[in-house]
Amino acid sequence: MSTSDNWIAVDWGTSRLRAYHVVDGAVVAQADSENGMSRVSQTGAFEAALLELVTPWLSEGTTDVFACGMVGARQGWAEAPYTAVPADPLPKSPVRVENTDPRLRVYIVPGLKQVKAADVMRGEETQIAGFLAQNDNWDGVICLPGTHTKWAHISAGEVVSFQTFMTGEFFALCAEKSVLRHSVGEGWDAEAFRDGLDATLSRPESLAARLFGIRARDLLEGENGAVAASRLSGLLIGAELAAARPYWLGQNVAVIGAGRVAENYAEALGVQGVPVAQQDAQDMTIAGLMAARTLTEIEA
Amino acid sequence: MSTSDNWIAVDWGTSRLRAYHVVDGAVVAQADSENGMSRVSQTGAFEAALLELVTPWLSEGTTDVFACGMVGARQGWAEAPYTAVPADPLPKSPVRVENTDPRLRVYIVPGLKQVKAADVMRGEETQIAGFLAQNDNWDGVICLPGTHTKWAHISAGEVVSFQTFMTGEFFALCAEKSVLRHSVGEGWDAEAFRDGLDATLSRPESLAARLFGIRARDLLEGENGAVAASRLSGLLIGAELAAARPYWLGQNVAVIGAGRVAENYAEALGVQGVPVAQQDAQDMTIAGLMAARTLTEIEA
Repeated sequence: MSTSDNWIAVDWGTSRLRAYHVVDGAVVAQADSENGMSRVSQTGAFEAALLELVTPWLSEGTTDVFACGMVGARQGWAEAPYTAVPADPLPKSPVRVENTDPRLRVYIVPGLKQVKAADVMRGEETQIAGFLAQNDNWDGVICLPGTHTKWAHISAGEVVSFQTFMTGEFFALCAEKSVLRHSVGEGWDAEAFRDGLDATLSRPESLAARLFGIRARDLLEGENGAVAASRLSGLLIGAELAAARPYWLGQNVAVIGAGRVAENYAEALGVQGVPVAQQDAQDMTIAGLMAARTLTEIEA
Repeated sequence: MSTSDNWIAVDWGTSRLRAYHVVDGAVVAQADSENGMSRVSQTGAFEAALLELVTPWLSEGTTDVFACGMVGARQGWAEAPYTAVPADPLPKSPVRVENTDPRLRVYIVPGLKQVKAADVMRGEETQIAGFLAQNDNWDGVICLPGTHTKWAHISAGEVVSFQTFMTGEFFALCAEKSVLRHSVGEGWDAEAFRDGLDATLSRPESLAARLFGIRARDLLEGENGAVAASRLSGLLIGAELAAARPYWLGQNVAVIGAGRVAENYAEALGVQGVPVAQQDAQDMTIAGLMAARTLTEIEA
């Protein structure tokens, strides 16, 4: 009989479900599906959605599952009530979920809340915990770009305060649902990004006025779609950085994210003279779930 | 045979078509349909969409039709090229449209463009002309709230400059398509509107941060939907007013609009000590089309 340490890490967000099979501290397999929380909450079949991905990894005994993200929301599998900041990013005991398959023992990591100014996160606290597990005694600010970008102030291992910006969602709404969709295209133009960024970083109140200019410039000058997309990104990130200035100014900043959007934040902060450490979001989620498991006293 | 002066005014926007039968300077009948420019441009059947509404008003001779709005866009019935500001809101000769029914003689009023900063309007120029036709020698600033709110600086009968804000479209996107849709409801709360307005008028850069607070406050405190809707409106209009300050500060301001949204702008400006004259948008459109007809040398 094997004595290997064998469990499953799950990143269960609004729109995607991602599972990782962890053996002796290493991810040996992974799988994902479109059974995000918002789809599954319509049927309530959370356990079935999970089993669809992880059944090949199960053995005769009980396998622990540690999940983070929107799966712990009120509309999720089971509500994992928010922990109020200031607090460690992870609690000592995550929420144990009722399930029927005896091969599974499922825990959900709760999110964090801030009472004033009202704010919430679910999933990012796990990435923060992963980052802190790999960076002992790290103080500073963590920026987590995404649909809802989070800025978190970290001190002595605790999340002291945080703030959410809907920048990613606004980019998608502007580019796909607003009148700007006729002008925004594929591709990237570094100069247009920088122009947009400068405009709203120096005069954040101009954001509301400059957005329609993307459409007007296309109508009058036939501006290309890549320029429009990059300018839109720059304008929105510039306005966010202007509002988040108390977070990053003179601080030690880490950006946890992936792809173009994380690079955009790192570049924008770099232009402001802020050195940035970049980490991959998926890596930090897995590291955070490992930390959650280590913290938890596993039942016999 | 009647010698009455008999013609048709048409307000043809993106989503609606509105027609008014004008006899001897008075609207004697009106009709409207959902055949806005964006729907009709898919089939090109502009004349049929118009005839569906106005046929009962036609006589044996030729009836003039004066139309304004997106019907003059590139995707519209016929492109009416923008006039560059500074300019009178209406040109001496609108664009004559080719049509097949001999009972109709159709003209489209062109929109205005501003080369720098790039901006465009179609339809609002007609409302401005209507306002100026009723207010001789009026100098000041006209605010036209809507999906895309316009601010226009008027001097000596000309539109000197203007600027567009996507505030109305953003309100709809936030309330209907974003994560805030779960929190925004029906109804009105004057205090929440005023709170939102104060927040972004004094610190416009905080808009990006405060929007998600609407969702968080609902999750943590169960804030009601009317409060959320009113706060969202206040935050967005406050940010617009902060950016449009050079337009309204110390100016003579007229708001041309209708319903709750026009009242919100008038209230917000009133709080800033700016006295506001309010006019109905539909009335100004009809008055503007009357002015366009008077300006135009009608063919024999």
